Amino acid sequence: MDGSKKPVVRVGLLGFGTIGTGVVGHLIGQRQLIADRLGCSIEIARIADLDIERDRGVKVEPGWMTRDAFEVVRDPNVDVVVELIGGTGIAKAVILEAFRNGKPVVTANKALICEHGPELFEAARAAGQDFYFEASVGGGIPIIKDLREGLVGNQIQSVYGILNGTCNYILTRMAEAGLDFDQALAEASQKGYAEADPSLDIDGIDTMHKAVILASLAYGFWVDYQEVYTEGIRSLQAIDIACAQELGYEVKLLAVIRAGSTGGPVEVRVHPAMLPKDHILASVRGVYNAAFTTGDVVGQHLAFGRGAGMDATTSSVIADLADISLNMLHQCPRRVADFRKHANYSGLLPIEDVETRYYIRLSVADQPGVLARIAAIFGDLRISIASMIQHESEHGSAEGVTLIFLTHRAREASIREAVRQVESLPTTLGPASVLRVEEDCQGG
Amino acid sequence: MDGSKKPVVRVGLLGFGTIGTGVVGHLIGQRQLIADRLGCSIEIARIADLDIERDRGVKVEPGWMTRDAFEVVRDPNVDVVVELIGGTGIAKAVILEAFRNGKPVVTANKALICEHGPELFEAARAAGQDFYFEASVGGGIPIIKDLREGLVGNQIQSVYGILNGTCNYILTRMAEAGLDFDQALAEASQKGYAEADPSLDIDGIDTMHKAVILASLAYGFWVDYQEVYTEGIRSLQAIDIACAQELGYEVKLLAVIRAGSTGGPVEVRVHPAMLPKDHILASVRGVYNAAFTTGDVVGQHLAFGRGAGMDATTSSVIADLADISLNMLHQCPRRVADFRKHANYSGLLPIEDVETRYYIRLSVADQPGVLARIAAIFGDLRISIASMIQHESEHGSAEGVTLIFLTHRAREASIREAVRQVESLPTTLGPASVLRVEEDCQGG
Repeated sequence: MDGSKKPVVRVGLLGFGTIGTGVVGHLIGQRQLIADRLGCSIEIARIADLDIERDRGVKVEPGWMTRDAFEVVRDPNVDVVVELIGGTGIAKAVILEAFRNGKPVVTANKALICEHGPELFEAARAAGQDFYFEASVGGGIPIIKDLREGLVGNQIQSVYGILNGTCNYILTRMAEAGLDFDQALAEASQKGYAEADPSLDIDGIDTMHKAVILASLAYGFWVDYQEVYTEGIRSLQAIDIACAQELGYEVKLLAVIRAGSTGGPVEVRVHPAMLPKDHILASVRGVYNAAFTTGDVVGQHLAFGRGAGMDATTSSVIADLADISLNMLHQCPRRVADFRKHANYSGLLPIEDVETRYYIRLSVADQPGVLARIAAIFGDLRISIASMIQHESEHGSAEGVTLIFLTHRAREASIREAVRQVESLPTTLGPASVLRVEEDCQGG
Repeated sequence: MDGSKKPVVRVGLLGFGTIGTGVVGHLIGQRQLIADRLGCSIEIARIADLDIERDRGVKVEPGWMTRDAFEVVRDPNVDVVVELIGGTGIAKAVILEAFRNGKPVVTANKALICEHGPELFEAARAAGQDFYFEASVGGGIPIIKDLREGLVGNQIQSVYGILNGTCNYILTRMAEAGLDFDQALAEASQKGYAEADPSLDIDGIDTMHKAVILASLAYGFWVDYQEVYTEGIRSLQAIDIACAQELGYEVKLLAVIRAGSTGGPVEVRVHPAMLPKDHILASVRGVYNAAFTTGDVVGQHLAFGRGAGMDATTSSVIADLADISLNMLHQCPRRVADFRKHANYSGLLPIEDVETRYYIRLSVADQPGVLARIAAIFGDLRISIASMIQHESEHGSAEGVTLIFLTHRAREASIREAVRQVESLPTTLGPASVLRVEEDCQGG
């Protein structure tokens, strides 16, 4: 920080893509407003990117650009580093080098935090530097600040998150326009809502990264991402979304994070789930994200906003830069720690032990006794059926009869065994469709 | 702060009613969790209340209680003061005395901040002490922290708030159960959602206090509450809520805060308004609160939670105590200022100059030429009609015909003049019902 006159915090930006361009543009555009609000200015000092020639449509001063990220983090004229390179290779090395050079870091890199959080936190702690990552989860939603500060007095009972805009757009279009998955994905790509390789999004990996970060902050131990059950939306069928709607539900790709009392295990899982239509999360449409948090003091809280894109993510990066700038101005680095261990929870609950409600759709032969045999399988496994719908087959159709079961709360392991047994019946025509039904998050 | 061993921040609580009891209970119940998260403990040291005998169901140590609030703020064993007395008399005097005694203050007192904000901020500044008031707006929603920190890089384009749980409960019951206002208010009272004297809530004063605070933080000048147009829900008729629903709208008591570009005026107004049913704010039901904020960087953001009640407000008081405790621990008081002047806006837009859409319901005599005369009045005042519905009168009814107009955007002054002229026609039977229709907040 140059404190010789009016204080200025000088930013070294790593990665000059979409988000980086947004950061540069808005720091220039809102320079006066930010300075008025904070009591110090935030200015770009250096930018590293492989492409130092392309015109991004924002003003770049001579001398800012370099191809060498390490040059930026070692530059004595840089006070704080913003890492927007992505990935877990060079990004990690350069962040560690920034800490070694006594510089705080802001990142939007969820994969890196998720996989290497504890190592990075330890490096930040050893260096006495701030490490902020609001933009890693739900670009336009200050959910990390909420969890860490606004709700700090709460034991968090649960967080239900819609955390991936690509998936939510696809599911919204499947529900509202009756598209099948491939059509909806193609439309998302066409509109720029899906990456060229969309697998990180549609396979739930991106949501899982974010769930790990939120769960770790909420429950005070760093969640091992390899233990998190993760199921994407690739195999969702239009018919199941239509049936869910008929039953009064919307299908969302949910991050479910919840725990009982201290001492017990924590559930962290990512999968498509049915939500009652009158739940406020069910009304989150299109590319929007939301996190629905229940705390023992505050009760229910929803934060909703754009999940990604240049500007929403930029807003969070600037908020983190503002926090770090205030910490510099007031000489209080690490005022809010990146991550603190706290309350004792006993690790993650294995997916097999999760209890929730289930939707099961079967296609079966139209013969006497079929339903009785299926019901007996459920009964033997102590799965209690809340409701059942039988759709008449079309005359002459070879597809048989469609049976849809909604269960009461049941253990995942029992459901899996039931589905295995039912699928092996000679009268069952093809694999079952299974969706978890989340109603414990009810309220609002 | 007692720094001799593990740091402890000692709280002097003024007012031991519902919220105060929640603060004491949760600070005791979450003591370990809060200490783990912050790195310091927060403990009650003294409590002032006129009633020092009553058992509130939380543990009170001998020596905590006094009837004299000034004794608490002068006590050298008190590090931070929480003011929950309410009102603008003793509460103000005791806060000023706390600052004079070098103690930071947390308050939930929206009327006090609204009316005497600048004087209190100046006293806090002169004393070099923190002054936090998250609990004054939307108990369970960290909206002040969002505006001041999470969205700090944004020029705020608008905030649409449902900020009073009592009113939102009444309006929800009128819409969902078809109750009239008096029935819904009686039900709210019976359930404990309305005060013995509900006028501050139902006349919109409480919402106005909160709107003044949010608008001032968003736009960087302290809004004069006496200039804020404020209309409550007392005269809302069940028929207008039913008609609004038929037209695809919900009626909410809204705080509307918005501005165009820097340099222009700011709109701050509180009144019942029609919101499109598919807007996420329309789905905020019952005693819940929500703030829908649009920033030029972040886009649209919604924060939703319980607006009042012991626990929700307690959560915000504890969050403010946590912020102050961290500032003490890291010796950075006033790291985030209570209020900072910033961007230049030219005061408030008078209500007469507001432009929005309008719903106008008239009861008129069933005679030829009536509609033509009314349409001519609208036309002469350049009010453009977007749609009109005529409900047939019942045979033999003396009530005439019901006409409902939805206008395009029009100036409030023109609408008032049109209504005045229409009501003075001999064929108009009784006063018009007028509701503002807010669609500019659309999105989500």
